[in-house]
Amino acid sequence: MAKGQETRERIITEAASLFNQRGFEGGSMSDLMEATGLEKGGIYRHFSSKEDLAVEAFDYAWKSAFETRMQDLERIPNSIDKLKHFIANFIERRPVVPGGCPLLNTAIDADDGNEVLRDRVRAALRQWRDSVSGIVDTGIKHREIRQGVDPKEVATIIISSLEGALMVARLERKKDALLTAQSRLEHYFDTELRVESTSRS
Amino acid sequence: MAKGQETRERIITEAASLFNQRGFEGGSMSDLMEATGLEKGGIYRHFSSKEDLAVEAFDYAWKSAFETRMQDLERIPNSIDKLKHFIANFIERRPVVPGGCPLLNTAIDADDGNEVLRDRVRAALRQWRDSVSGIVDTGIKHREIRQGVDPKEVATIIISSLEGALMVARLERKKDALLTAQSRLEHYFDTELRVESTSRS
Repeated sequence: MAKGQETRERIITEAASLFNQRGFEGGSMSDLMEATGLEKGGIYRHFSSKEDLAVEAFDYAWKSAFETRMQDLERIPNSIDKLKHFIANFIERRPVVPGGCPLLNTAIDADDGNEVLRDRVRAALRQWRDSVSGIVDTGIKHREIRQGVDPKEVATIIISSLEGALMVARLERKKDALLTAQSRLEHYFDTELRVESTSRS
Repeated sequence: MAKGQETRERIITEAASLFNQRGFEGGSMSDLMEATGLEKGGIYRHFSSKEDLAVEAFDYAWKSAFETRMQDLERIPNSIDKLKHFIANFIERRPVVPGGCPLLNTAIDADDGNEVLRDRVRAALRQWRDSVSGIVDTGIKHREIRQGVDPKEVATIIISSLEGALMVARLERKKDALLTAQSRLEHYFDTELRVESTSRS
């Protein structure tokens, strides 16, 4: 990797960590200069503006959070088990970028302002919802999940429940709200989504 | 009301609106000077620091959001109906302070930094959870809600679901996620909380 490219990526990594913890407005250029050991000019040589950098930092943070949550899913054949594993990943796996969920943080940060950043967060939400609803869709086709279930709605329920519980858990600095959300969602899967009569044994 | 007190309250109202939309870091003193028409000194005569002002602004925003959500609940006798009305208030009633839920916004803003502000948000969460779990508690005593239900857990489920759905709804600028959360929660109340055999007719 060329030196310039390496520096660019290091700036993105540091900015992702800074903005995800302190917000796009709260994370200042001087914080970033300190974290990277670069002068302002050294940073702006790679990015046209703070917003441009924030967008790249968000994309990086989101990509890593998304991958963490989707980890090992392809190994699990049953769709309901896949959804459960996804939730366990969300709760238990520590993401690479500190500061909580980049989608939640940046959505709150950007919902009354920065339109460019907000569009990226919306794209991230779409990607996430499509992945989760894709699992549900496959589950319906494989007759593991009931006909008539709306995959997009299931995905929205899962995402909303987890993000809301994450906010509470981070505020309280304990996992209780997340574990409650997990047990509610698992109960929902088992009682309202799962096809009951597939006795495979 | 004395002139000084009036000015102080006007600063709090403007700061609440500013910080709730742009965040504690994103809302600058110059924005606030513009909104209030006051000089920096005129603002700091009433508050010892930006943090001090942020705490008062949060308390104001939270009090108004909380009151909006609790509106008319005392008129409803049945606890399950009370919970449903609370959710309808959350979704339909426009709060006085713009920018979404102050608890959600400030929790995300303060979870990696500002400890004083974070403590206020935790106190707000406690108050909110106590109010909702108080409704559940009364419902159990009145035999409207099943024995063995954990009031605090029910309150956590309601709060997390609504806050997560609010984040999605604000990001998408449409209510769908909130309406989905509402219908899930109502279904949960009717199938898992409500005492079935109280036929009062």
